[in-house]
Amino acid sequence: MPSDETRPLLTETTFRVRFAETDMMGVVHHASYLVYFEEGRSALSRHVGSPYAMLEASGFSLAVSEVHVRYTGSARYDEEITVRSWIGQVQSRAITFEHEVVRAASGEVLARGTVRTICVDRQGRVCRLPEEWIAPFKAALALWQAAAGVQ
Amino acid sequence: MPSDETRPLLTETTFRVRFAETDMMGVVHHASYLVYFEEGRSALSRHVGSPYAMLEASGFSLAVSEVHVRYTGSARYDEEITVRSWIGQVQSRAITFEHEVVRAASGEVLARGTVRTICVDRQGRVCRLPEEWIAPFKAALALWQAAAGVQ
Amino acid sequence: MPSDETRPLLTETTFRVRFAETDMMGVVHHASYLVYFEEGRSALSRHVGSPYAMLEASGFSLAVSEVHVRYTGSARYDEEITVRSWIGQVQSRAITFEHEVVRAASGEVLARGTVRTICVDRQGRVCRLPEEWIAPFKAALALWQAAAGVQ
Amino acid sequence: MPSDETRPLLTETTFRVRFAETDMMGVVHHASYLVYFEEGRSALSRHVGSPYAMLEASGFSLAVSEVHVRYTGSARYDEEITVRSWIGQVQSRAITFEHEVVRAASGEVLARGTVRTICVDRQGRVCRLPEEWIAPFKAALALWQAAAGVQ
Repeated sequence: MPSDETRPLLTETTFRVRFAETDMMGVVHHASYLVYFEEGRSALSRHVGSPYAMLEASGFSLAVSEVHVRYTGSARYDEEITVRSWIGQVQSRAITFEHEVVRAASGEVLARGTVRTICVDRQGRVCRLPEEWIAPFKAALALWQAAAGVQ
Repeated sequence: MPSDETRPLLTETTFRVRFAETDMMGVVHHASYLVYFEEGRSALSRHVGSPYAMLEASGFSLAVSEVHVRYTGSARYDEEITVRSWIGQVQSRAITFEHEVVRAASGEVLARGTVRTICVDRQGRVCRLPEEWIAPFKAALALWQAAAGVQ
Repeated sequence: MPSDETRPLLTETTFRVRFAETDMMGVVHHASYLVYFEEGRSALSRHVGSPYAMLEASGFSLAVSEVHVRYTGSARYDEEITVRSWIGQVQSRAITFEHEVVRAASGEVLARGTVRTICVDRQGRVCRLPEEWIAPFKAALALWQAAAGVQ
Repeated sequence: MPSDETRPLLTETTFRVRFAETDMMGVVHHASYLVYFEEGRSALSRHVGSPYAMLEASGFSLAVSEVHVRYTGSARYDEEITVRSWIGQVQSRAITFEHEVVRAASGEVLARGTVRTICVDRQGRVCRLPEEWIAPFKAALALWQAAAGVQ
């Protein structure tokens, strides 16, 4: 993970663990972290100015093509957790997002994950990301790369 | 609940409780029973010969307008449970389903519920149930009512 | 539903619909409303000063014994919704909660529900609500009843 | 993925996609595949003779420490899908499982995933897998390795 200064487009969303998200181990079920990451992507896309709901409304979706998650802690019911999300990579037909879920009180990392998504149309065909929707992501990423001295 | 002899169109579906369906109380979360009932409706509609997937494919949905559930027991991970489903009432725009979830091994009733659904089109407007889809339900119900001496 | 002036202990919680909560009809799946109601109960119990997490920590749970929900609208991904929760009734072993889910922007009611819960211990036996946990609920309810002139 | 002849302990479980598992894209939500994989692990552990429920009953859990999933297709409501599960690796404190979800009718692969789990006790401490529970997994794996000529 890049340091805070060099991390682009970092969006943070904080909410409490719901009772229904726990399992009989007494902690959040591992599948719920994919839903938390998705919440992070929703917040990130609104923050950038290209809400994901807008992409859906224009007839396209971001289908998840790959996820990789490492779990390093666990969260309990009613705890406040923060999802931190940033853009990993933007390609013509794909966006990769990076996510962390941390305990809000302590900052302890509970899970880190990478989610790769590809643009599909209503028929499920892979297609180019609509330029008007992806432009703000590219602009923000370029701005950060200039600031961070990234090539 | 009517007795077995007089209960129409009874469909039974048996499966095991999934780990993710439990919560920190160690038993199945109460919202999962609505998903179990839905599985029962899927099985019932296939059994009658009018799969719910066929209704969806023709541009209509059954939106749930009311649920009433009484919980009388609890189920644990890996237990086999049986969903018993039957038709309560068929109207021009609505179908009411009755459901029970029982422990497969003992028959102990864990939950009983009534789910009322209404037919909506793609724009969410309430509309008449397509005759070709609902006819088999009506026929089965009439057959049962004749057999049971119900008016 | 009582009017705002006479409704006791009203707690409101607002959040956005998650993508994973939608189904192929394009709207929030009906089972998700039970999870929203549960979030409302969590907020209400924290607001009263007796967090539900505290009851769990002391070895007791509120098991849901009955739910009744009427659905009157639908919510889409990313929409802000508000869960309004209040206490219906407090008994020695049971609490009944009342809930509404409304569209935050318009106040349109999407679902109204009653959830009856009973106190159980770790062995699943029904038992009295611990006095130290339920007292704040009773006090708040009594205060409201005095203000509203309810007997 | 090893070929069928050399794949150890392959367990297959077939069931239908539930309506609640779909999202507004009209297909199964990506998080549901983690639940399908978990179902596969449940079936595999029962098949080997060491049901996961037995491990839980003895005071231990398998906490998921890492997941990696590649999605290559999508499934719709009511479709039959098959989860294929096998053991990747057994260590003193960890088991790695391999999974595939395929369309039952065609065998088309929809998702492949690796799930790494570690043994934890009731306090969440990492600990050795109980020998009596893990022995059947080791025996089956050794049997397969002998048959396949794997060192």
